[in-house]
Amino acid sequence: MITCSKERMEDKIVTFSKFGDTGKGGITRLSMSPEAIQARDELCKRCKALGMEIKTDDMANIYATIPGEEELPAIAMGSHLDSVIQGGNYDGVLGVLTAMEVAETIVAEKIQHRHPITVVVWTNEEGARFEPALMSSGVISGKFDKADMLASADKKGTTFAEALEASGYKGDESNRMTSDNYKALLELHIEQGPVLEDKKIDIGTVEGVVGMVNYEIFFKGQSGHAGTTPMPYRKDALYAACKIIQYLHDELDKLDSNLVYTTGRMDVKPGIHTVIPDDVSFSLDARHQNPDVIQQVVEVVERIPKEVEKCEAGFKLNWRRKTTPFNTELVDFVEKNAKEYGYSNTRLYSGPGHDAQYMADVLPTTMIFVPSVGGHSHCEIEYTPVENCWKGANVLLQTVLDVDKK
Amino acid sequence: MITCSKERMEDKIVTFSKFGDTGKGGITRLSMSPEAIQARDELCKRCKALGMEIKTDDMANIYATIPGEEELPAIAMGSHLDSVIQGGNYDGVLGVLTAMEVAETIVAEKIQHRHPITVVVWTNEEGARFEPALMSSGVISGKFDKADMLASADKKGTTFAEALEASGYKGDESNRMTSDNYKALLELHIEQGPVLEDKKIDIGTVEGVVGMVNYEIFFKGQSGHAGTTPMPYRKDALYAACKIIQYLHDELDKLDSNLVYTTGRMDVKPGIHTVIPDDVSFSLDARHQNPDVIQQVVEVVERIPKEVEKCEAGFKLNWRRKTTPFNTELVDFVEKNAKEYGYSNTRLYSGPGHDAQYMADVLPTTMIFVPSVGGHSHCEIEYTPVENCWKGANVLLQTVLDVDKK
Repeated sequence: MITCSKERMEDKIVTFSKFGDTGKGGITRLSMSPEAIQARDELCKRCKALGMEIKTDDMANIYATIPGEEELPAIAMGSHLDSVIQGGNYDGVLGVLTAMEVAETIVAEKIQHRHPITVVVWTNEEGARFEPALMSSGVISGKFDKADMLASADKKGTTFAEALEASGYKGDESNRMTSDNYKALLELHIEQGPVLEDKKIDIGTVEGVVGMVNYEIFFKGQSGHAGTTPMPYRKDALYAACKIIQYLHDELDKLDSNLVYTTGRMDVKPGIHTVIPDDVSFSLDARHQNPDVIQQVVEVVERIPKEVEKCEAGFKLNWRRKTTPFNTELVDFVEKNAKEYGYSNTRLYSGPGHDAQYMADVLPTTMIFVPSVGGHSHCEIEYTPVENCWKGANVLLQTVLDVDKK
Repeated sequence: MITCSKERMEDKIVTFSKFGDTGKGGITRLSMSPEAIQARDELCKRCKALGMEIKTDDMANIYATIPGEEELPAIAMGSHLDSVIQGGNYDGVLGVLTAMEVAETIVAEKIQHRHPITVVVWTNEEGARFEPALMSSGVISGKFDKADMLASADKKGTTFAEALEASGYKGDESNRMTSDNYKALLELHIEQGPVLEDKKIDIGTVEGVVGMVNYEIFFKGQSGHAGTTPMPYRKDALYAACKIIQYLHDELDKLDSNLVYTTGRMDVKPGIHTVIPDDVSFSLDARHQNPDVIQQVVEVVERIPKEVEKCEAGFKLNWRRKTTPFNTELVDFVEKNAKEYGYSNTRLYSGPGHDAQYMADVLPTTMIFVPSVGGHSHCEIEYTPVENCWKGANVLLQTVLDVDKK
């Protein structure tokens, strides 16, 4: 079977790791920053050298296209070039670099294809400079109001609209990806979790993005002096919160074993060592591909008593996201190709959100995961061996060619 | 039996509540602030009007003295005039105002006394502007190094030494309270807890200040994405912390029922709702009058496993304070006088620290507690009815006269 070049793959990773290099193994490449523009410029330079045509849309999403032999909608592949502060060299950028490598292989090997083939770069996936995350795929898939997004400002007060104008990458709305001008979208991404590496699996065949609920759970007690309030008089909101965290573990552990749930934030007020806490709240994030399981989580939360350890207890649903299934034909292609290359593979759902999840509502879409060493992501030690990046690029290449043949 | 004046008691409380009035029922009267100086000036003006002689020592502690009939050491009573930010009208100041009322009663009623009788005001009890708390009693009882205290700076960078010079209240080291020039020290204070009010008791006969231990208990886990890390892979430092809070409740509740223990502060890092916490720590404050019970607490803490829910667990002793027993003869006087006035009373230990606790190492000392409505303290709703303040003043008066007769 035809394969990409491992050497070129490595060169791309090394080159792009210079744009925003923190000097500590990672990058800070906030959306529309000078470092992000450098990375975009490098991408455009390399794509032009391959004879690709570059367009951008009104959200500065980049589309670099190799013409096809026929007048057909394009097959798109890509991800994002922006990072979080002190992020790594793989999240997002690897999806762009593997797409570039697939395009370069098609050009270099003179592989015939009927459809145009496009490398896409989504603007501001991370939301680390301008909130929210998934901003531009969100706008063009109708999830977000464009005017609201343009008004989003960074910490210095610069709006996204201003950064967009200054970037030189703002294009025309007519260039947006739609189901008329694109046939399919493929996004390769690092797993951002430990499962593939731990199980020594090369390729994750992503079936969709899991649904989730996010709650704020809170407790109101009564403050009092640590030295003067006998234990029977206390209404300790922190102890109440600990009781409910244990209740959540006990009850949620009874549900499906693929459920993940997390309390990442807990605020304890007034937060003084000599004062009994009277105001405690914590977050609960729960994710599963099956909406029935998410509904079971909702029911567990709704069974939290109104009074816990003499404190008032309550909860608030912050947001809920439905499960996004990917296109089953594309998913099958990915799985078949991983097998044909002889790569170990498994089907799984993505826990984090991705641009592909929003675009799945617009056109046939799927994702390919490659392992994250140690499960690390959004940090400088984020790492995926070149061998795995290359295997992912090969599966991406073959999947593009399968779609082309359809 | 002779009594103080309830009307004068009320006038004193109302007058002093103006110095630093927050407009919301409380005061902000940080040590050496203009508001604190106003309160000191008012005290000196009133004491001079009663014919008392005013001295201050090198820490600006004020000593206002009615001469005795004989050349004997003085009997001292008092507390502090400074408050926390948005504190109340009773913590500290009530001990000064009842002492002033006792002095005024002795003068007005021409009560004969052999010993000089002194109203004392301790500088910077709260430590709310200049750390630490109990600063000046700490210096003159040899607990703190004076040079360190003088260098203590507030948030604006003003040192305690500068504030002391500017106050006009800095006096001579030879005026410090010692066991040569003072026979006894009595401090009336609000309970700062709910027990006296709850049990409808007028007077708390304070036997001492409880001993305490303060620990930092910490957990190191591994961070990971809330959506990509399956439950069996997790090292969740917050869940480990909750397990140990439950362990502490289970084990400490088996010890003496007078033990109080508190986790007032908990830090959860990185504190992002989508990230599993990898770094959690919390405080543990435990207090009891019996050193054996405190030792049992130490043993419970030392039995915390080194690994909890796959996280590394550890603890650090921040500080330990031994129980300070008060002078038994003075304690007996307080109890006898409460009974003779027909006031309901009980013996108890103080949970919070007080200047009297440090001075107990220097000269015979004890305290008198009056109820705190709702147990509130260090807040604007702190309240003790005038009736209770007056009863406390009467017990203080009679106890001073008992010491005088000895």
